[in-house]
Amino acid sequence: MLTLFHHPMFAACRFVRLVFGEYGEDLALIEEKPWARRKEFLTLNAAGTLPVLLAEGDTPLVGATVIAEYLDETRGVLKRERRLFAEGPMERAEIRRLIDWYLTKTDGEVTRHLVRERVLKPVMPAEDGGGSPDSGAIRAARANIRQHMKYTNWLAGTRHWLAGPRLTYADLAAAAAFSVLDYLGEIDWREHAAAREWYTRVKSRPSFRPLLTDRVRGLSPVSHYADLDF
Amino acid sequence: MLTLFHHPMFAACRFVRLVFGEYGEDLALIEEKPWARRKEFLTLNAAGTLPVLLAEGDTPLVGATVIAEYLDETRGVLKRERRLFAEGPMERAEIRRLIDWYLTKTDGEVTRHLVRERVLKPVMPAEDGGGSPDSGAIRAARANIRQHMKYTNWLAGTRHWLAGPRLTYADLAAAAAFSVLDYLGEIDWREHAAAREWYTRVKSRPSFRPLLTDRVRGLSPVSHYADLDF
Repeated sequence: MLTLFHHPMFAACRFVRLVFGEYGEDLALIEEKPWARRKEFLTLNAAGTLPVLLAEGDTPLVGATVIAEYLDETRGVLKRERRLFAEGPMERAEIRRLIDWYLTKTDGEVTRHLVRERVLKPVMPAEDGGGSPDSGAIRAARANIRQHMKYTNWLAGTRHWLAGPRLTYADLAAAAAFSVLDYLGEIDWREHAAAREWYTRVKSRPSFRPLLTDRVRGLSPVSHYADLDF
Repeated sequence: MLTLFHHPMFAACRFVRLVFGEYGEDLALIEEKPWARRKEFLTLNAAGTLPVLLAEGDTPLVGATVIAEYLDETRGVLKRERRLFAEGPMERAEIRRLIDWYLTKTDGEVTRHLVRERVLKPVMPAEDGGGSPDSGAIRAARANIRQHMKYTNWLAGTRHWLAGPRLTYADLAAAAAFSVLDYLGEIDWREHAAAREWYTRVKSRPSFRPLLTDRVRGLSPVSHYADLDF
């Protein structure tokens, strides 16, 4: 069994857990406090970022896209119609564009900021940057959510899954990001029917179950978080 | 011939140009003002980011890593010992980690900020965010350069090329970032002999020549910028 260093409220870590879940492969989880810069962890990844996968031979693989490409090369190619990636270079490029959209762009404009202010800062020691949330940062992140919802709604309304006719990494990356925001009660699903229908489909998959039981200290999820008919 | 929408001082765009150069393939360049959010450009890439490659069939490919993976799948696999990627999944993961290090981490901690403050703001209209550079942002970015130089010096002192025995995407990503910083005179090479020796080797390659003749309006490069024996 491989080991993942993760944080339960980081979209990129949730994405990797979903991929393992879809491929039916067990994964040992080690929760890492990303602000602690633990020495043993830094020897695995000098950048101190999450996720890090200890792959075959305990080689650390750093970052969601690096891990996803590795898993496709070592698992996905053998999965036939259950492969979470496409065969053709153009279709692969589209899936990669969407992984990057949700795990880099959405993260940098929305997710990461809300997680830092609402989840991490209240439990971080003051000397590591903990303390009261910055309401300006929260407001700025919230102002950006709508654009990402609209874009997802457009994709979900145009295609069966976000990157085309099949479930791919793109859906798992997007759902990972939205599941974090949904936990925090930051998403108004009513205005985005196509996105909601798509998210319900992803959320109903067995791979999603472990994410729906995640809880963070001192912060309960919004009431519909684990509800499959929200 | 394919077309690249780029900015001459963006590391990720330089990286793509270096890859085309190494593969001996001509590339049409269209310089894009990233702050202008030109309508025709946004139809190619709703995120408005650079680089964007118009690939076969004029399909837009967004982002340096997406483009690099596409070029490997459509060109690299045929290049034998001139391939800029490795064969094995682990070696590929290491190359991807380093692309991400230089084009995301170094960019987010150093390069992007110095380019914004020193290159873009002086020529941007005030209503798009132009104006005087923010000296605090410049100071913060400069404080981070040393760590990236030290890490590169360690890699270059341990391996022949940054990801191992052969020239790969990792070298081109790192050299793209350093070439931008070097243009701006932000690098003190004297303290980092191994990094300097490595950079001299990359800089001497024919693929690098077009980058050494790049000039941006109102800002000349540091005197040794195009000097192969600096």
